[in-house]
Amino acid sequence: MEIDHPETLAEVEAAFARYEAALVSNDIAVLDELFLAAPTTIRYGGSENLYGIAAIRAFRAARPASGLARRLARTVITSYGRDAAVAATLFYRDGAPGRVGRQMQTWVRTPGGWRVAAAHVSIIDEPA
Amino acid sequence: MEIDHPETLAEVEAAFARYEAALVSNDIAVLDELFLAAPTTIRYGGSENLYGIAAIRAFRAARPASGLARRLARTVITSYGRDAAVAATLFYRDGAPGRVGRQMQTWVRTPGGWRVAAAHVSIIDEPA
Repeated sequence: MEIDHPETLAEVEAAFARYEAALVSNDIAVLDELFLAAPTTIRYGGSENLYGIAAIRAFRAARPASGLARRLARTVITSYGRDAAVAATLFYRDGAPGRVGRQMQTWVRTPGGWRVAAAHVSIIDEPA
Repeated sequence: MEIDHPETLAEVEAAFARYEAALVSNDIAVLDELFLAAPTTIRYGGSENLYGIAAIRAFRAARPASGLARRLARTVITSYGRDAAVAATLFYRDGAPGRVGRQMQTWVRTPGGWRVAAAHVSIIDEPA
C-alpha cells in the first residue's frame, strides 16, 4: 500500500480545500455532495452523533449559517493506496478562545469523485 | 469500490475486537502493534492531539491503567474496497454519567495486518 501517492494525494487535497470553502460559506449543496450518500456514512459532530446520510443532511439543513469562520492549523492529509485517505486538522474560532477544534475525515474514491465516508469533529480546551 | 466485502469486513471486525480488548485491559503492546508505525499516524484523544507514532507511544506509556472499562454502543464497522475501513462506536463509562464517548478509527491493510492510521476520541454530553 503506497502512502501519499502524489496524484492521489493531490486529488484529496483539492477535495478537502473545496469542502473547507463550502463549510465556512455554508454551501450546503457542496457539503452534501462531498459526503458519501450512504446509510453507512457517519458524522460525529461537536454535540451530535449522526448515523447515515439522511441524518447528516437534516443536520446541515438546520445548521446556523453564521459564525462559521475558522483558522486551520496542523492540517495533515495522507492517502493510503489509491482509493482512501485521511484528512486531519485542528481549527480555531475567534469566538472560542482557549479552545481547539479537531476535525478528522476519512475520504474514499467513488466513480463520482472523492467523498467523506466518516467524519468526527470535537472541541476541547487547548492542551497545555 | 465495494463496501463491506464480507471477508474484508470480517478481518477488520476481528482487528477491532482485538483492539478493544487491549484497550480495556491496557495491553500496551497490542495497542502499539495495532497502530500504524508511521509519522503520519494521528490520534486525537479526549484531551490531547498526537501527531506521529512516537507521540502516540509516549502517551500510551504514561496512560493511567485503571478506570478503563466501558460499554460500547452503536458500533459500526464499514470497509471500503479491500484495503481500508472505518470503525465508529459510542462508549459509556460508569464514572461519567450523562456523557457519551465517540471513537472513530480509520483502518488500513498492511503486509503485517490491519492497522489504525488515524483515530479520534472525544467525549460530550449525551445529546437530548
